[in-house]
Amino acid sequence: MPNPKTALRILGILLIIEGLFMWLTIPVSLIYGEGDAIHFFLSGSITIAVGFAAYLFTRKAQLEVTKRDGFVIVTTGWLAFSFFGTMPFLFTGSIPDFTNAFFETISGFTTTGASVLNNIEELSHGILFWRSLTQWLGGMGIIVLSLVVLPVLGIGGMQLFIAEVPGPTPDKLHPRIKETAKRLWSIYLIFTGTEILLLWLGPMNIFDAVCHALTTMATGGYSTKQASIAYWDSAYVHYVITLFMFLAGTNFTLSYFGFHLKFQKVWRNEEFRYYVGFIALFTLLIGLGLYHERGSDPESAFRDSLFQVVSIMTTTGYVTSDYLTWMPALTMMIFILMFFGGSAGSTGGGPKIMRIVILIKNSTQELKRLIHPNAIIPVRLNKNALSNEVVTNILAFLAFYAAIAVVSVVVMSLLGNDFETSFGAVAATLGNIGPGIGAVGPSSNFYEIADAGKWFLSFLMLVGRLELFTVIVLFSPVFWKE
Amino acid sequence: MPNPKTALRILGILLIIEGLFMWLTIPVSLIYGEGDAIHFFLSGSITIAVGFAAYLFTRKAQLEVTKRDGFVIVTTGWLAFSFFGTMPFLFTGSIPDFTNAFFETISGFTTTGASVLNNIEELSHGILFWRSLTQWLGGMGIIVLSLVVLPVLGIGGMQLFIAEVPGPTPDKLHPRIKETAKRLWSIYLIFTGTEILLLWLGPMNIFDAVCHALTTMATGGYSTKQASIAYWDSAYVHYVITLFMFLAGTNFTLSYFGFHLKFQKVWRNEEFRYYVGFIALFTLLIGLGLYHERGSDPESAFRDSLFQVVSIMTTTGYVTSDYLTWMPALTMMIFILMFFGGSAGSTGGGPKIMRIVILIKNSTQELKRLIHPNAIIPVRLNKNALSNEVVTNILAFLAFYAAIAVVSVVVMSLLGNDFETSFGAVAATLGNIGPGIGAVGPSSNFYEIADAGKWFLSFLMLVGRLELFTVIVLFSPVFWKE
Repeated sequence: MPNPKTALRILGILLIIEGLFMWLTIPVSLIYGEGDAIHFFLSGSITIAVGFAAYLFTRKAQLEVTKRDGFVIVTTGWLAFSFFGTMPFLFTGSIPDFTNAFFETISGFTTTGASVLNNIEELSHGILFWRSLTQWLGGMGIIVLSLVVLPVLGIGGMQLFIAEVPGPTPDKLHPRIKETAKRLWSIYLIFTGTEILLLWLGPMNIFDAVCHALTTMATGGYSTKQASIAYWDSAYVHYVITLFMFLAGTNFTLSYFGFHLKFQKVWRNEEFRYYVGFIALFTLLIGLGLYHERGSDPESAFRDSLFQVVSIMTTTGYVTSDYLTWMPALTMMIFILMFFGGSAGSTGGGPKIMRIVILIKNSTQELKRLIHPNAIIPVRLNKNALSNEVVTNILAFLAFYAAIAVVSVVVMSLLGNDFETSFGAVAATLGNIGPGIGAVGPSSNFYEIADAGKWFLSFLMLVGRLELFTVIVLFSPVFWKE
Repeated sequence: MPNPKTALRILGILLIIEGLFMWLTIPVSLIYGEGDAIHFFLSGSITIAVGFAAYLFTRKAQLEVTKRDGFVIVTTGWLAFSFFGTMPFLFTGSIPDFTNAFFETISGFTTTGASVLNNIEELSHGILFWRSLTQWLGGMGIIVLSLVVLPVLGIGGMQLFIAEVPGPTPDKLHPRIKETAKRLWSIYLIFTGTEILLLWLGPMNIFDAVCHALTTMATGGYSTKQASIAYWDSAYVHYVITLFMFLAGTNFTLSYFGFHLKFQKVWRNEEFRYYVGFIALFTLLIGLGLYHERGSDPESAFRDSLFQVVSIMTTTGYVTSDYLTWMPALTMMIFILMFFGGSAGSTGGGPKIMRIVILIKNSTQELKRLIHPNAIIPVRLNKNALSNEVVTNILAFLAFYAAIAVVSVVVMSLLGNDFETSFGAVAATLGNIGPGIGAVGPSSNFYEIADAGKWFLSFLMLVGRLELFTVIVLFSPVFWKE
């Protein structure tokens, strides 16, 4: 049995933090004089008050977090953030309906970027800033979750990274989280700051630069424009954002090494090399296809291809070119890229490059095992032989991913969506990407999906973002026993 | 290095057998007086002559078959049968074009049932009989392959069945194949004979009864009518065929036990129980959907649902109701069923129930492992704990299946097919089902697919039928070394 008081106490602290971030929106509102500062003040105050109450109420709780508490805190934490995070949307009337507001908020905190908004450019600066902030906060959470918490919880091969993370050895969760989080967050901050600066130097104003930097680094993909990045017809903007999407989709531990000029260590990392390799391969294939289709301007074909490949693979979801208007084979490749995901230890969602690599390696090893049935032929990553257990872990994760996708596609089609939309909506939310295919492609959004579908997809975003098991395990009777 | 002479010698024997079966078509042609007996005589004679030549030419070859020879013989065997099997189609002019003839023939021998014919009812009895016979022969091959050869070769968890198969202990491949094959083939023969009788007792004439029995037991799905089983508006025909599709999709070892009245042993088999369970579940879901949609006649809704679920799950591919006209969610369920497949050790294709079950079990065990990380929590099948190795084997198989499907879908869309058709054509051929979705649904066929697509899909049928690894391993450089 997990300890509800411990969980509640930590949730309280987290809510206070969320409330403080809501208050950050007040100056933005005041600067632009849009008169909705009071709503942000109110939202923040309620959130802080609730958080503080929870904190006081659980004064006597022990702060020794067990594994089971960990699962509970992570899932309820993301849910609580999404629940309280709806207030700014509701109070300002930007999204008057709770279902839509919740969808938009959880899509933010899970760094998905699937939107229900058809009037983005009419929204106040405060709301747009809050919307970007949800993703940036979600990204901060994910970095800690994937590099510090999940390895300890032993989720789907994440333990592979324990040794890799710079920081004190993992005895207890608490001091380790603190130290490692600080290091990784400073990189997150530096990247965000640099991107703001670079975008501001280009055709973007400071507000758009800030908002887009926040959502790029989170691989979130919320934009301040209905047309997403296509709004800026500027190669400079496209390449800058591509670069930072790429960095956001890279393991933050590697960036840490990069900052310490240990480039050899970065390049020796196999996941990183596959990450670069996949991007190069798909950019080439799709770029050639686009050039063939358009018949002119190879640079823009290359740029659109690179941008869209990086955007989908890192699960950001920005758009410079509507891939549904491309020829079927190119759209199909983009759809398939939705099942790759960013690097493990990045803010990217999806199954993750590392798992895809191990899947591929295990399959090729299986062929060798067939020919030499008595030899022990392990899967190697970064030259280390992986234990059979970790490989099974990872394969089980991918199987779960596929199974959830399949069941979800049936659910979405039961809710009246067509074949492509069902596939697209599931791939885009479970993979925390944003835009999908069919009726939820890059030129449209999730507004038309029925309410039941929105709740279901919200659940998928949560499940996908928290590496499946973290959420699913809560539904297992064993978890609540003893 | 495999031994080419040994392979050639066995291929020679197999071709002689194929030629003799071609000659079987001569009496059919003579009875119906359609004047194409000469073409069947010629086709058979050429095949026998080539087989005999290969046999003589390799007189000095040793008949000790190594594992590697096994892989080569299986793949080239199916290819050789398909190559020579085109002759009746070509010589009679029923299918004048080699690409189409090869597609139709390999679709037969792999028991797929994907067709390019738009004029089935205009074909001679001899040709229709040969077309059915290719499937029945393919089914005979598959039984031996999946229950005797593949377990020895160690393909994707097939070794699980070694202990189960009644027959002498596996010392050498040869005597074991002979004895076990005899037992299993007698069941195959008995089932075929019984189905002929039962269908003949109903509204079918003897010719249609024979052809359909041949293609049911092979889970092939070729029909003598363009409308498939929907041609017979008879509940009796539908239920009889459903029963035999079910039996053909059951592990033949279990049928062997059934014949010896060891029903307990049948019901204790977990794969069998899941097989029944999945059929019950999907029949119920789809049946309710059809009843809801049609608003009347619950029996026909149930019957259509049961028939279509069993037909797709066993990978037979007969049709009584065009599932593309059903509401999207029901079509989606049928599409998903295409990734289940029959039982291991049946004539059914696809990934197989056994593997799906182990996938599900391993995933639920993974949840338990998360909560109790130090406990050893194995996957159990029929109450035996499976080794980690076998589980990895099976997961690698499924991963391979998915990877091949994904790449193939891209290839099909590169060849100009739309999203649904690409998915449908790949699922239907790789899973050896027959009809897919999109432009290759049950009311249409593969005629319109471009030639390159037909060759590619032919390859998929072969790969799917031979449990992937058997074919893929031939492309591995390691295989040809030393």
